[in-house]
Amino acid sequence: MAIVQQSVRWIRRDGRIVDGASPETLTQPGRVRVLDQTRLPGEVVFLEIDELEPLIDAIRRLAVRGAPAIGCAAALGLAAVAGKYPPLSLADFRKRLEADGALLAAARPTAVNLSWAVNRVIREMNASGARNDVEAKRALLLAALTVLAEDIRLCRAIGENGLPLLRDGMTVLTHCNAGALATADYGTALAPIYLAREAGRRIRVYADETRPLLQGARLTAWELQQAGVDVCVICDNMAGLVMKEKRIDLVIVGADRIAANGDTANKIGTYSVAVLAAYHQIPFYVAAPYSTFDLSLPDGKGIPIEERDGTEIGNGFGRRTAPDGVSFYNPAFDVTPRELITGYITERGILTPPFGAAGEVL
Amino acid sequence: MAIVQQSVRWIRRDGRIVDGASPETLTQPGRVRVLDQTRLPGEVVFLEIDELEPLIDAIRRLAVRGAPAIGCAAALGLAAVAGKYPPLSLADFRKRLEADGALLAAARPTAVNLSWAVNRVIREMNASGARNDVEAKRALLLAALTVLAEDIRLCRAIGENGLPLLRDGMTVLTHCNAGALATADYGTALAPIYLAREAGRRIRVYADETRPLLQGARLTAWELQQAGVDVCVICDNMAGLVMKEKRIDLVIVGADRIAANGDTANKIGTYSVAVLAAYHQIPFYVAAPYSTFDLSLPDGKGIPIEERDGTEIGNGFGRRTAPDGVSFYNPAFDVTPRELITGYITERGILTPPFGAAGEVL
Repeated sequence: MAIVQQSVRWIRRDGRIVDGASPETLTQPGRVRVLDQTRLPGEVVFLEIDELEPLIDAIRRLAVRGAPAIGCAAALGLAAVAGKYPPLSLADFRKRLEADGALLAAARPTAVNLSWAVNRVIREMNASGARNDVEAKRALLLAALTVLAEDIRLCRAIGENGLPLLRDGMTVLTHCNAGALATADYGTALAPIYLAREAGRRIRVYADETRPLLQGARLTAWELQQAGVDVCVICDNMAGLVMKEKRIDLVIVGADRIAANGDTANKIGTYSVAVLAAYHQIPFYVAAPYSTFDLSLPDGKGIPIEERDGTEIGNGFGRRTAPDGVSFYNPAFDVTPRELITGYITERGILTPPFGAAGEVL
Repeated sequence: MAIVQQSVRWIRRDGRIVDGASPETLTQPGRVRVLDQTRLPGEVVFLEIDELEPLIDAIRRLAVRGAPAIGCAAALGLAAVAGKYPPLSLADFRKRLEADGALLAAARPTAVNLSWAVNRVIREMNASGARNDVEAKRALLLAALTVLAEDIRLCRAIGENGLPLLRDGMTVLTHCNAGALATADYGTALAPIYLAREAGRRIRVYADETRPLLQGARLTAWELQQAGVDVCVICDNMAGLVMKEKRIDLVIVGADRIAANGDTANKIGTYSVAVLAAYHQIPFYVAAPYSTFDLSLPDGKGIPIEERDGTEIGNGFGRRTAPDGVSFYNPAFDVTPRELITGYITERGILTPPFGAAGEVL
């Protein structure tokens, strides 16, 4: 009874949408179904994929995006592709799967969840004790559906842990998209909001449009609207004013990587929002699964910041908006220092640093 | 020897561009020439206007924008229109001029410089002692060229007063467009930068793109590039990061209205930039002519904030960027409180509040 659009699911040949393993599902062929995010917010189009090339293409052109969603799509997609292999010896099956997995993992080299998911399902298949290719296909699908189920469980747990922060009538500001479209379920930053809505609390959301790629306007606004959450889109430069006007009770954003001291890398603009929230004494929370914590980094200085092409700024929406030959600075992320962050909403509860206490293993 | 593109000038029938009165100019017919800002940054197109309808149209569709530039265009435009009237009695000339002036002043009802400029040139013409329509045309053009010359003088004086803030090698961040395109000369916020460049100092500028209408990316970047100033365009949400990265020495922005205590209304996003500058201990200056100070308002609470249509946010790039039916909040301005502003660069020097000291008259 999810109230969000499901960005990644398994679809059986009989048309049933599946988000968990059952004996019947494991023996039936199927495909991965992904919501094509490049068509949003204009059109709701689902892709159903069981071949390698369209799968790589969907990941490469960002039809599916968001680290957890990419991981789920890759895992289920690989199971679908391998499910169509002709009868093979187990050795040949493995060889072909390894080759396809390597191609898939290279679709977006910097997306760590992609290679993580591919490696994981192949490893679990290898460890399953499958005696032939039919059993191997089954083990692979079971592993992929487990990735999906885990992501759903993570989203729900993050949502449950963030839920007490949201009282009826509150207004949340968020940045970029850390919602259902970035995961297989309720998202991270938006999960508490969806659970609050399910619990009958009226929560209003201001969504920063999030230049240059407008994930807030295109994706966050769309998925909240679909779920019946009252959402208002603002330009990024209006965040300060809406805080000054006392429209915002709470900020929740996602995270791409969190260092051991709590410094957090997230979509460009998050840092500005955090400074503004601190100035207006508004609580600022980061919501992310515990796997986002990178305890090998003592602080945010070690987090590399990807710099992307300036055409995203000057020519991003079918119209040239800056003069030819002008220079751009287009960092894709920024790092928010620990002291601006009120707490970290994870599946283990709302944490505060220091993380990685003695003996703790990620 | 201006290094900027001139947004508004008088052009004589012999093709000479004029920015001051001379006996010869006052007896020759001519037109107002305005740079069509709706074609920027793609094309540099000048409109030459000596009829009322195209003049009103140019102001209405923002071919000329920025309060001082609108005032100059209206004054010179009205002189061009009246210059083409057939021979009339002085009474009939005045009647026709009053009627045309009223239509012109209504082109953008909220642009206070528009009606101010129209009223001023008509008043000066009436006070000139002109004995017939030929002398009246001459007096009107003289009054209009005086409006232009005053704006040029104001820009230069603001630039001179801001110049000591800019040492060789410094980097300035600005927001929106308070430059040559908003005035008839070097602008307000950008005037010190142009004078620094003339003085051989290397000044680098970061231009916030300034959503939703992108005046920073379209206009500020263009005019600085034209003048050979090193300019880098960023999205508004990157201002915090570039400050954190210690790329910015100084912020200079323009102003739409300044209350007696120093609270300053300016383009939406200015407030966020001011908070970010204060957090990073970067000086934040407002540059504006003294006429921008509204001493009838004790503080910024009395400044009305225009709220504009959400389609500017959701449909601004020629492509729908947010779902249908979603709500928007689109304030055109915000108010930056006095305590976030380091100083006010005016033609009278760099001021600090309180303004309007005993006996001072605006």
